[in-house]
Amino acid sequence: MIFQQSLKIKTLGRGMIDCTAKVSDLVVQSKINTGICHVFLHHTSASLIFCENADPAVQSDLEAFMKRFVPDGDNLFKHTMEGPDDMPAHVRTVLTQNSLTIPVTQNQLNLGTWQGIFLWEHRFKGHERKLTVSILGDDSSS
Amino acid sequence: MIFQQSLKIKTLGRGMIDCTAKVSDLVVQSKINTGICHVFLHHTSASLIFCENADPAVQSDLEAFMKRFVPDGDNLFKHTMEGPDDMPAHVRTVLTQNSLTIPVTQNQLNLGTWQGIFLWEHRFKGHERKLTVSILGDDSSS
Amino acid sequence: MIFQQSLKIKTLGRGMIDCTAKVSDLVVQSKINTGICHVFLHHTSASLIFCENADPAVQSDLEAFMKRFVPDGDNLFKHTMEGPDDMPAHVRTVLTQNSLTIPVTQNQLNLGTWQGIFLWEHRFKGHERKLTVSILGDDSSS
Repeated sequence: MIFQQSLKIKTLGRGMIDCTAKVSDLVVQSKINTGICHVFLHHTSASLIFCENADPAVQSDLEAFMKRFVPDGDNLFKHTMEGPDDMPAHVRTVLTQNSLTIPVTQNQLNLGTWQGIFLWEHRFKGHERKLTVSILGDDSSS
Repeated sequence: MIFQQSLKIKTLGRGMIDCTAKVSDLVVQSKINTGICHVFLHHTSASLIFCENADPAVQSDLEAFMKRFVPDGDNLFKHTMEGPDDMPAHVRTVLTQNSLTIPVTQNQLNLGTWQGIFLWEHRFKGHERKLTVSILGDDSSS
Repeated sequence: MIFQQSLKIKTLGRGMIDCTAKVSDLVVQSKINTGICHVFLHHTSASLIFCENADPAVQSDLEAFMKRFVPDGDNLFKHTMEGPDDMPAHVRTVLTQNSLTIPVTQNQLNLGTWQGIFLWEHRFKGHERKLTVSILGDDSSS
């Protein structure tokens, strides 16, 4: 069994958006009991990560760390056409991830208690971002 | 065909544990000949990585690099409830990976000669960590 | 349905090689309409990344960033048997990725407009690198 559907997520500029509920809903819709759920982000200037989902300070601390680690407007970069956040967004993306795969168990997204699926926008401005969710498996129990 | 099973791994504090043999055994048990094996770690303060498996100095060098790169007790962080290694563990996790997918060929985990699957505990103290292994494929040759 | 095939890619030393066309060809050959495509690199001193595919300066900027971030010949490292680029290649690999999964839609690799699949050689010298591409899905539309 295969289920595939795309989602659009509007970001409001740099920062994270919790997409866990939207992906969970698709797993239930898929009627797949046991398998895997693949979430793919079609962009090179935003990431998908598993972030701790209880304390919002984890998100702001990750952002603070990344900002210090990959400075905007770094003189090292030649690819600066779209501004000081252009190349840093590509570096942030390559050093994190664009796609996540999660087990599906008993027709549920089988995440850890503290794991959420977050879209991390790296550009200063908001963008409409496209995700494709693919769920593979069967309808029997494992 | 789908095979899914969870494993518990006890860590002894910060450092790496080679999980390759346990995952390989599940591939053989699954009787799946050709497909993929997905290994998922249900935590936000430990990673799964492919590490060079021959020289233990690679593990200690990776740990030394990470310790310098993401200092424990960094004043930048606000999420410090569980100690100086709390937020660094989340950063280390986001900058590495929580899940790995490996081809399955002829009912074997098809890793490179020097690739092992390592669980990297980022917290100072040991924890019981949960993995879920999902294997998808069929029983014919590719 | 499952399709699996290995590829050899010759690298010319440190730098990136666009492998998108080779992987796309295998998706078409597989005749799989809807599913996922998993690309796996069997090495611990080279990476697979999604890189922006329009401006070659993105590749050279990523390389410049990584070179500053993980210096060759760093005194921190003990695993130096194969030279000053040996351990940095392992660090670069662990902080990026060895395998990528992409949705397959209408028998095409469903990448974003600006996303390419790049093999990033981290060693100074060229190597023959092995990839295994596994495509899972079915021949119906999603």
